Amino acid sequence: MNKDFIVFALSASSELADEICDYLGVRRGRIKVEHFADGEIIVEPEESVRGKHVFIVQSTSAPTSSTVMEVLIALDACNRASASEVTVVMPYFGYARQDRKARARQPISARLMADLYEAAGANRMVTIDLHAPQIQGFFKIPTDDLSIVSMFGQYFRNKMADGQIKNEIVVVSPDHGGATRARKLADTIPNSTVALIDKRRSKPNEAEAVNLIGDVRNKTAIIVDDMIDTGGSMVAGVDMLLANGATAVYAACSHGILSGSAIERIETSQIKELVVSNSINLSNEAKNVDKIKQISVAYMLAKTIEAINERTPVSNIYSLFND
Amino acid sequence: MNKDFIVFALSASSELADEICDYLGVRRGRIKVEHFADGEIIVEPEESVRGKHVFIVQSTSAPTSSTVMEVLIALDACNRASASEVTVVMPYFGYARQDRKARARQPISARLMADLYEAAGANRMVTIDLHAPQIQGFFKIPTDDLSIVSMFGQYFRNKMADGQIKNEIVVVSPDHGGATRARKLADTIPNSTVALIDKRRSKPNEAEAVNLIGDVRNKTAIIVDDMIDTGGSMVAGVDMLLANGATAVYAACSHGILSGSAIERIETSQIKELVVSNSINLSNEAKNVDKIKQISVAYMLAKTIEAINERTPVSNIYSLFND
Amino acid sequence: MNKDFIVFALSASSELADEICDYLGVRRGRIKVEHFADGEIIVEPEESVRGKHVFIVQSTSAPTSSTVMEVLIALDACNRASASEVTVVMPYFGYARQDRKARARQPISARLMADLYEAAGANRMVTIDLHAPQIQGFFKIPTDDLSIVSMFGQYFRNKMADGQIKNEIVVVSPDHGGATRARKLADTIPNSTVALIDKRRSKPNEAEAVNLIGDVRNKTAIIVDDMIDTGGSMVAGVDMLLANGATAVYAACSHGILSGSAIERIETSQIKELVVSNSINLSNEAKNVDKIKQISVAYMLAKTIEAINERTPVSNIYSLFND
Amino acid sequence: MNKDFIVFALSASSELADEICDYLGVRRGRIKVEHFADGEIIVEPEESVRGKHVFIVQSTSAPTSSTVMEVLIALDACNRASASEVTVVMPYFGYARQDRKARARQPISARLMADLYEAAGANRMVTIDLHAPQIQGFFKIPTDDLSIVSMFGQYFRNKMADGQIKNEIVVVSPDHGGATRARKLADTIPNSTVALIDKRRSKPNEAEAVNLIGDVRNKTAIIVDDMIDTGGSMVAGVDMLLANGATAVYAACSHGILSGSAIERIETSQIKELVVSNSINLSNEAKNVDKIKQISVAYMLAKTIEAINERTPVSNIYSLFND
Amino acid sequence: MNKDFIVFALSASSELADEICDYLGVRRGRIKVEHFADGEIIVEPEESVRGKHVFIVQSTSAPTSSTVMEVLIALDACNRASASEVTVVMPYFGYARQDRKARARQPISARLMADLYEAAGANRMVTIDLHAPQIQGFFKIPTDDLSIVSMFGQYFRNKMADGQIKNEIVVVSPDHGGATRARKLADTIPNSTVALIDKRRSKPNEAEAVNLIGDVRNKTAIIVDDMIDTGGSMVAGVDMLLANGATAVYAACSHGILSGSAIERIETSQIKELVVSNSINLSNEAKNVDKIKQISVAYMLAKTIEAINERTPVSNIYSLFND
Amino acid sequence: MNKDFIVFALSASSELADEICDYLGVRRGRIKVEHFADGEIIVEPEESVRGKHVFIVQSTSAPTSSTVMEVLIALDACNRASASEVTVVMPYFGYARQDRKARARQPISARLMADLYEAAGANRMVTIDLHAPQIQGFFKIPTDDLSIVSMFGQYFRNKMADGQIKNEIVVVSPDHGGATRARKLADTIPNSTVALIDKRRSKPNEAEAVNLIGDVRNKTAIIVDDMIDTGGSMVAGVDMLLANGATAVYAACSHGILSGSAIERIETSQIKELVVSNSINLSNEAKNVDKIKQISVAYMLAKTIEAINERTPVSNIYSLFND
Repeated sequence: MNKDFIVFALSASSELADEICDYLGVRRGRIKVEHFADGEIIVEPEESVRGKHVFIVQSTSAPTSSTVMEVLIALDACNRASASEVTVVMPYFGYARQDRKARARQPISARLMADLYEAAGANRMVTIDLHAPQIQGFFKIPTDDLSIVSMFGQYFRNKMADGQIKNEIVVVSPDHGGATRARKLADTIPNSTVALIDKRRSKPNEAEAVNLIGDVRNKTAIIVDDMIDTGGSMVAGVDMLLANGATAVYAACSHGILSGSAIERIETSQIKELVVSNSINLSNEAKNVDKIKQISVAYMLAKTIEAINERTPVSNIYSLFND
Repeated sequence: MNKDFIVFALSASSELADEICDYLGVRRGRIKVEHFADGEIIVEPEESVRGKHVFIVQSTSAPTSSTVMEVLIALDACNRASASEVTVVMPYFGYARQDRKARARQPISARLMADLYEAAGANRMVTIDLHAPQIQGFFKIPTDDLSIVSMFGQYFRNKMADGQIKNEIVVVSPDHGGATRARKLADTIPNSTVALIDKRRSKPNEAEAVNLIGDVRNKTAIIVDDMIDTGGSMVAGVDMLLANGATAVYAACSHGILSGSAIERIETSQIKELVVSNSINLSNEAKNVDKIKQISVAYMLAKTIEAINERTPVSNIYSLFND
Repeated sequence: MNKDFIVFALSASSELADEICDYLGVRRGRIKVEHFADGEIIVEPEESVRGKHVFIVQSTSAPTSSTVMEVLIALDACNRASASEVTVVMPYFGYARQDRKARARQPISARLMADLYEAAGANRMVTIDLHAPQIQGFFKIPTDDLSIVSMFGQYFRNKMADGQIKNEIVVVSPDHGGATRARKLADTIPNSTVALIDKRRSKPNEAEAVNLIGDVRNKTAIIVDDMIDTGGSMVAGVDMLLANGATAVYAACSHGILSGSAIERIETSQIKELVVSNSINLSNEAKNVDKIKQISVAYMLAKTIEAINERTPVSNIYSLFND
Repeated sequence: MNKDFIVFALSASSELADEICDYLGVRRGRIKVEHFADGEIIVEPEESVRGKHVFIVQSTSAPTSSTVMEVLIALDACNRASASEVTVVMPYFGYARQDRKARARQPISARLMADLYEAAGANRMVTIDLHAPQIQGFFKIPTDDLSIVSMFGQYFRNKMADGQIKNEIVVVSPDHGGATRARKLADTIPNSTVALIDKRRSKPNEAEAVNLIGDVRNKTAIIVDDMIDTGGSMVAGVDMLLANGATAVYAACSHGILSGSAIERIETSQIKELVVSNSINLSNEAKNVDKIKQISVAYMLAKTIEAINERTPVSNIYSLFND
Repeated sequence: MNKDFIVFALSASSELADEICDYLGVRRGRIKVEHFADGEIIVEPEESVRGKHVFIVQSTSAPTSSTVMEVLIALDACNRASASEVTVVMPYFGYARQDRKARARQPISARLMADLYEAAGANRMVTIDLHAPQIQGFFKIPTDDLSIVSMFGQYFRNKMADGQIKNEIVVVSPDHGGATRARKLADTIPNSTVALIDKRRSKPNEAEAVNLIGDVRNKTAIIVDDMIDTGGSMVAGVDMLLANGATAVYAACSHGILSGSAIERIETSQIKELVVSNSINLSNEAKNVDKIKQISVAYMLAKTIEAINERTPVSNIYSLFND
Repeated sequence: MNKDFIVFALSASSELADEICDYLGVRRGRIKVEHFADGEIIVEPEESVRGKHVFIVQSTSAPTSSTVMEVLIALDACNRASASEVTVVMPYFGYARQDRKARARQPISARLMADLYEAAGANRMVTIDLHAPQIQGFFKIPTDDLSIVSMFGQYFRNKMADGQIKNEIVVVSPDHGGATRARKLADTIPNSTVALIDKRRSKPNEAEAVNLIGDVRNKTAIIVDDMIDTGGSMVAGVDMLLANGATAVYAACSHGILSGSAIERIETSQIKELVVSNSINLSNEAKNVDKIKQISVAYMLAKTIEAINERTPVSNIYSLFND
């Protein structure tokens, strides 16, 4: 392998970066990330990056403003220090949900983030399960959007193989926008079907009405989503599926944001299991909840960094996770 | 109204532009669009644009390469001729479906188009029912994406009012990606529900399996989509809904591309009606098919041009089409 | 006055913006600034900005990452909503101290901030007492850097006039980089002289040695700086000047950051008075400290906004504050 | 040779690219170029380009809009797929004649094309006999404009050597703008002189008057031009030269556009021979016309690609074609 | 007229600007242009430009580096001072002859100049008789290239009318590249023809051979060119035309560079008259030479500034000079 | 060492470049720099740069406009000739003093220069002792600002070691802005202190009053500055320090501009020695003045070029000059 590269972690992703570096067999690069009392940040590589391909690993999860700012300052520092190229490995891309003007005068902050990273000097992005695949197009620079759907598929096929799941499986999208994702997961699970939770609000101040489209009776349901934030609608979805006859409900969410009282809400819910990746570092509180399972993306990211560095196709990496 | 603006039409949208100019009460601007024998095009405004706000009306429908090129050359000509601002009114935005990398090494041509229009000097875009709302974010310049869903709603409520439709209505999305659009149309139709056609292909060379999620029995179904191209999967959807017990099937598609043998296919199908807008100019063949109905977007676009010109909110225009 | 403008405040500067709007005789624009549980922010103007000149008032003081992000998102929202021009009024420009590479591999975050505001669509900046005047050159867009040094001069001349200060005055720079600023303030105070605190560290791990250059004996000293952060070196400077025979020590700092235990430190120090502006909103704790005095920049900013809007020279505004 | 490069052909230049690849001793890269029924195009490399120097071979000849669009989409696809560099080899550069504003409000489409290729991500261009040498300056990226004038010289010297041409030669420019090109060709042919066809139109609606400047009596004339389009004025020129006493008239045009009824016109004319290059693929109809001779630029382009790839001077290539 | 504009002159064009301002009926703007002993320059507007349309009048004639630098610095100053728009009126565009790569590794300095003016903030250019019309395409911003050919036509028709010229006129291009210009001038002079001086150099170290193409016997010849620099080849051309039987030779050159010993050379030559414009300020030495006549472009430029400012077509201005 | 680089000198720095090339053990690249009679310049590399890393050595000292223009044209030529990267080694960066708006409507020409070099295609800068360290931030590209302060320190420590200087040393800043630089030099000289010359002008038309802050009695003073221009205030400073009791006064200025009558002024002054670097080529007149000593930066620049080329840290170079 071309050793002329260096992997840095910023403050949100140091654990993950350590795991990645273990797979790569390299020492993680030394970089100082200092937050001052007045709210400013400085990021300084503590070893030379001149002429090297730098990989900056950072999810822009909470505290989002601060994790974004770290990336921008790190990019400025690396470029001024004559790095040959900088790839930002951003397992969780913050602001992905602000990807369109839902009403007049809204920002499209996901595009703004793309512009900011490019303005600060990013040369390439690696992301995982972007909220909408169109977000790749917000970048002018090459962007590889990996997916862990096949890892979820493997996870549930294993459960079927060892008898933990015995019924037929129905993959459920928690909203209209997620139907494609549900179909994709279902494609990896034999004999599974798809259903959809249909929410609507007839008038602005009325309560939201919720409907189930499709059939879950006597099936094991897996609600799939790209992220779980406060967990409120997830728990409501679980209850609703059980009320409609599902025998058990799992949830598979690529990014475990788990903000507000999400962890407690999950713990006390009727959910069987919530599976998330370590794209966002789980709090200790979350790690202590039995119902929350974590799948690591470190190997997938390590193989991607390797491919980028050796200039071999990233597309090959996908096959690694499909049996 | 500030009269210091001028509306030009390029070759794909002259009929629509005439209708718009009638509403605006202005004469359509004179512009020469010439296609040479060797395949090149020249676009030359035939009256001064110096200091004026220019509106170029053009759908980038087939022949797409040529309609796109006309826009780019028109932008160059207007900017070099010192127009103060150029707004491209593009009722149908070609290449919208190439909005993400569906697999390795694909282009994201929708973003490319946005970059090209900006590089050629566009200052603002007006579009209708973009294939994905995220495409607004492909533009750095302000983009107003109008919607004709509420016009469709009005159309079908009228049919209910005059007794042409008597059953309950179910709005059907022809694929996973369209579920949100189906919900939006259903929101405008009292007592309607939503269903979803679920296609999957277990293995690359196997036939596609098609499933219905949700219930259409004894209902009038409306398949809603942003565009209808060759019409093949639309007709298959109609048959499938009827087989599942729907009493009649309508289709409402914002953009009537109708390429290949689409028109014949629609005419000979069991579809009740296909409603499209005039965002793309219908061929005479299509106009002669009774089952194909057309709704005009001219008034909506005229009001938008007026608002842009008078610097009043475009968001007000929407309320015009909601009762 | 041209009424086609609107003044918005973001979360760090709403009090100041209210004061500015009072002077301007306009209602402050309605804008939603929402911070979500997951750390993301949304900024949405709640009234039309189409065709208007927008002034966004926001100091990028602590929490800096968040106040910067609000500005960037607000810029994106205003530009996409077709504002004709956006001027950012940033009384305190965060990251100003990261204005050069002090050692290898440091970022120049002040330039990065300038690039980010420009990338997000700012058309003009208004700042106050930038840490280094060269920072104006970090912007490509027009930047008006106002100064409150003459307001400080007026403040101390008043104290001399009413007998609060009876001795000769010596203006002291707390470090080498501030000598020019000390001279500027001294120029506004009759019969004053200048002195300089000379810090040095002979070897990396040795204690810092501090020297006084110039004479303060039997004089009233005014330490002048562009900002006061943790207050540690300020308080040490006060002690040192008193030890060198100064009869009393004032401090005049344009921007009152007052981070960490600065307030307590000031309160319990031998300082006579610390004068700061309201470029950064003082905490209630700080407002309750008698030794901390505040001068308002609202009138100066209101006159500047007025001049920008009426296209009259901003340079005229300075004369307002010189006698 | 550095093998880390790949040569792709788009639809207008696959024959030429095959010839080039033969000289280079490489297999032509696999790339899918698909034109859909609705007028859109997709271009997808079918093998990895990650880290490779990609050469895209495509003349933007008719159908021009479509051949241009293929290049733009191919550039987007290659850049998003992480090609290290993309050189566009464009033997015929479409829109070259729109290189200035001949009258008010005309576009300068040749500059527009340059901007579009750059916006889509081209890193270098290779062209042949641009209509005006200034067009190189329309590009910011490095552009190598090769010339086949010396190949034409060689062609006619051979004819003199084997006795096909016995008289003195006069090289004729068909218009004022081509005088420099005529001189260049004459420089490669011993004892040749230069003449010029002088067209003028005294008043807008009068017939064009044509004059000969220089002497062609009892000489073999070669009309030289960078391109032949409809052939109308070429055939008129031939007649006029014969009428002025030329014993035979040849034509040498770098690019054989041959649009409209050009081929028939040439065939039935008094022209001795029309020599063109294969920068534009000749139709079968044209290939069957005896009077139309073709010179291949494949070897010259292969040597250029080799030089670019091995980073040796491209200027050396010229000497290959001068005896 | 919209009075919100201001006309500045830099050091090469103050006389011309005064004449322009007289036509416009405005006072010339006050601007300081200072050259320091160390070779640096500062340009400072001495009156407010905030919100105004600024016209900077400056030919980039010798000392070229310095006149170019003045324009760039003036642009920076005006933009930072919030001018609403800056138009550079550059009657003579320096570096126009470096408009293509004549051999390997040459710069295209004319394009470079265009990029520099745009980078420094120019919004529009006005030029006169660019060396090649393609140079307009070097600019992305709108560029109006005026021509004084019709003024030359008028000048010589007057000479015919008052009997100073009695023979038929032949307009002569001094080289191959100027044939189009010669034809243009001939078009404005009744019964005139065109001829061409054909220079060639068979081998690098051989003397240049010169030929006349076309007939000048017993005619009055006018050599027309866009500029006259050292005058060497002009004088040789005059001699050659007389040797070929011309009865008298005039020269008409838009831009009178007259560098080196050009003036003396003209004075002592057999030329009848050299007519130049005042696009470049003539030295007193040149003004004292009877054979050198000057035509003023001030009125044409004043009308152009007026049109730009009033947003009326610039194309109308041309008709003023055609009878 | 990677031999794939080439060092070119432009007209202001050929002597220095020769010295650099000697250290590097390479032949200086052949490049033609021609100044024409009409004031234009052409720069043409006379050997291939395709794929090479080019280093252009040029101080933008007087004649500044011309030396700047040479750099810009050289950048254009190298980029169009396919250089892989171009680093501008600019020991003296002209226009550094125009680094802020000192009053309304001033340009910030130092930023303008940075923008121009970037627009012309520079990829990296190497400078020495920029007037203000913030100027690094005027560049977006990586910029290494070297310092010769430690070389000055070594120079004076040697004088102390060999007994030429026996007293304590005081390092004096000639103005407020230079206090930091004085402290830096003092840090390298054992037992030295710092003083400051304090100039002020109470009212616009009054004479400037000069004060000394700090103590110079019985000490050897070294006035340190980044540049010496006309030398007027330097000589006044020397006199003033002697009047205040200094036993001898040296001056150390990184850049010896020495414009106007500076040399004579130095020669006839009471200054002991003026030490400058060869960043600007000294005139022969200056070289003949005994009081003017020169330190060479060639070795430091050679090591920097080597480091850039071998991609080793430039920061290591500093340690070479600290004992």
